Amino acid sequence: MAETVIDTVTSVPVAVVGAGPAGLMLAHLLGRAGVETVVVDTRTRREIETTQRAGILEADVARDLVETGVSERILRDGYEHEGVELRFGGRAHRIDFKALVGAAVWLYPQTDVFIDLADARDRDGGTVHFGVTDTEVLDVTTDAPRVRYTAADGTRHEIRARYVVGADGSRGMCRDLVPEDRRVRYGKEYPFAWFGILAEAPMSAPELIYAHSEHGFALISQRSEAVQRMYFQCRPDESVDAWSDDRVWDTLQARVAGEDGFRLKEGRVFEKTVLRFRSFVQEPMRWGSLVLAGDAAHTVPPTGARGLNLALHDVKVLAEVLLRALGEAGDTALDDYQPRALQRVWRAQSFSFWMTRLLHTAPDGTPYDLRRQLGELDNVVGTRAGRTYLAEQYTGWPTARAEH
Amino acid sequence: MAETVIDTVTSVPVAVVGAGPAGLMLAHLLGRAGVETVVVDTRTRREIETTQRAGILEADVARDLVETGVSERILRDGYEHEGVELRFGGRAHRIDFKALVGAAVWLYPQTDVFIDLADARDRDGGTVHFGVTDTEVLDVTTDAPRVRYTAADGTRHEIRARYVVGADGSRGMCRDLVPEDRRVRYGKEYPFAWFGILAEAPMSAPELIYAHSEHGFALISQRSEAVQRMYFQCRPDESVDAWSDDRVWDTLQARVAGEDGFRLKEGRVFEKTVLRFRSFVQEPMRWGSLVLAGDAAHTVPPTGARGLNLALHDVKVLAEVLLRALGEAGDTALDDYQPRALQRVWRAQSFSFWMTRLLHTAPDGTPYDLRRQLGELDNVVGTRAGRTYLAEQYTGWPTARAEH
Repeated sequence: MAETVIDTVTSVPVAVVGAGPAGLMLAHLLGRAGVETVVVDTRTRREIETTQRAGILEADVARDLVETGVSERILRDGYEHEGVELRFGGRAHRIDFKALVGAAVWLYPQTDVFIDLADARDRDGGTVHFGVTDTEVLDVTTDAPRVRYTAADGTRHEIRARYVVGADGSRGMCRDLVPEDRRVRYGKEYPFAWFGILAEAPMSAPELIYAHSEHGFALISQRSEAVQRMYFQCRPDESVDAWSDDRVWDTLQARVAGEDGFRLKEGRVFEKTVLRFRSFVQEPMRWGSLVLAGDAAHTVPPTGARGLNLALHDVKVLAEVLLRALGEAGDTALDDYQPRALQRVWRAQSFSFWMTRLLHTAPDGTPYDLRRQLGELDNVVGTRAGRTYLAEQYTGWPTARAEH
Repeated sequence: MAETVIDTVTSVPVAVVGAGPAGLMLAHLLGRAGVETVVVDTRTRREIETTQRAGILEADVARDLVETGVSERILRDGYEHEGVELRFGGRAHRIDFKALVGAAVWLYPQTDVFIDLADARDRDGGTVHFGVTDTEVLDVTTDAPRVRYTAADGTRHEIRARYVVGADGSRGMCRDLVPEDRRVRYGKEYPFAWFGILAEAPMSAPELIYAHSEHGFALISQRSEAVQRMYFQCRPDESVDAWSDDRVWDTLQARVAGEDGFRLKEGRVFEKTVLRFRSFVQEPMRWGSLVLAGDAAHTVPPTGARGLNLALHDVKVLAEVLLRALGEAGDTALDDYQPRALQRVWRAQSFSFWMTRLLHTAPDGTPYDLRRQLGELDNVVGTRAGRTYLAEQYTGWPTARAEH
């Protein structure tokens, strides 16, 4: 492979591996500052567009997407949610984000964030190559790293850059470029997964519902007036084939059932997926001229809706740091990246773990665990301190509000 | 035993099994309302007085002890603490209870609470029999329950009561009087214990220090100007014989070490104990004419300093409910007890579990767990929401502040 003929050689300040929201947003932010990038991804644009992912954006993240010219559409097609509902013990309890911490979140699917970013790159003349193969990242410990890949048309390309950003997700190759004896991988597996559905049905509730029940967790989300997204806790090895629409609805209804007679609005289920997840962080987030961002460096369980937000926070910090590094500050400017990114990363790890433990039933859980969860949920929703603690973590930790 | 001769028969409205703080405070509160009690305990007064126990009282609990005439001494010999310190990652972080939730706590040993209560019973002419044997509690499912016991002088007594209160702690016999098929026991064991010392040394800090380190948890507490109480996490099967004073101080110093060069003030260690603990709740808290209070119904790990406070909260509610039950309301008044007591019990279970998990290292803990703990600690001390969440739980949930 190394000996194949290179058809084109391109020089740009920053090469980006991975055209998900993190990679494209970074390219967008650098592009606005006049820094050219080439972004490559092994997936086709169609593949990324049809993968259903999370749909909650922090207000600050949504604002950045709007204000930097990526997505006016959020304001039109998204839904601003000023709170969430926690259901447990058969009762509904609202956490009023706006009243508690003055923040809100936006329901806007990750898929649409991707579409908006890819469109923005097209509009602004940015280079993005989807569906590439045989990606190689070379010489990352020098100040002249290179990315080689075979484009969808079969031609072989080399990108010569000052920096390479690994934004290629949790199954990407970039994190492996940090030598085994120089990296630490922190991880945690969970004994459950989410069974996710998309259904043709009207909204069952105006905001997300996080439901705790002795049968397990369920999350009632939305997508649009006509299509809904819902999840329920299942075994990691669950097979979608065993789940008829009726069984899916019976399971979901049982998990949200309560004294108030609440019922989900049912409809045809047109997508069923089992989503496994884990907690993961790799350090360092920088290795020579390679910098990791988003899922390439860390993943969280989806319970706290932190993953996409965290990735976009990474690249916001990274764009700023890269601009300084490419300017007068030089290479040392990059030293700022990891410390600034990591504090939020570990807070988000902690929050996602806490929300996950608070709401899921463990296979080896005891009656004590169940009652303790209910005691903790009561303490969270039943006191202003508890509600605020949840609200601040769920809506993010805006830099302006952060205290030390 | 049932056939032994009864030397005396006494009738009182309420018989109390257990002369710890819960039993004595209940007798005191009932006595103030003119309701006579007999309290019995298998331990001698000297035994109870020399058992070292927790030393943090919620402000509301301390106020009740002062205002009901039990302990003026708290205000003189106790120390009002307006906050605690959390140490982790080599740094100190103060949680300012007063500023955050307008509450404080009192450092005042449980042993002294007991002495004050026993003295108050003596002063007020209340009947308390220490060092009894062969205690029997009979007929609790009728409205004429009895308590029989052999007094320290060898005489056999029978107390005829309308209600019997089981306040005989976690190793008492009262909880077993609820039939096995009618009770639920919720419990959790922990894979660590506390190594507790008393040392002749000056105070190392003006407030409690909760220290997280990769070597395990430590708690720096105080007792007086000349005597200090400290703890460090150890194995549940640890033997005190293996610990010289030097080894104890080296361990404690390592766990509080930090960038600030903080050092504990050392001195002769004159008591060493391994304290095992568990989480436990038994329901129901009432069975016929028997009512359970304090450790007889529930225990928590000591980390959140909830145990004594929870017990005294139980009896405050119970005294009120018993007075109504003995008055015009009758037996049904007792129905209020469990629901009112249990909300706080499960909140305290949740808080004690959370504090314990936040600060201890588990024997099977991974590097991920350690980093996640640090992320959670950063989120707790680094945000006002986190500090308030901890402060409100640590200082209790005063009824006046409770929201629903």
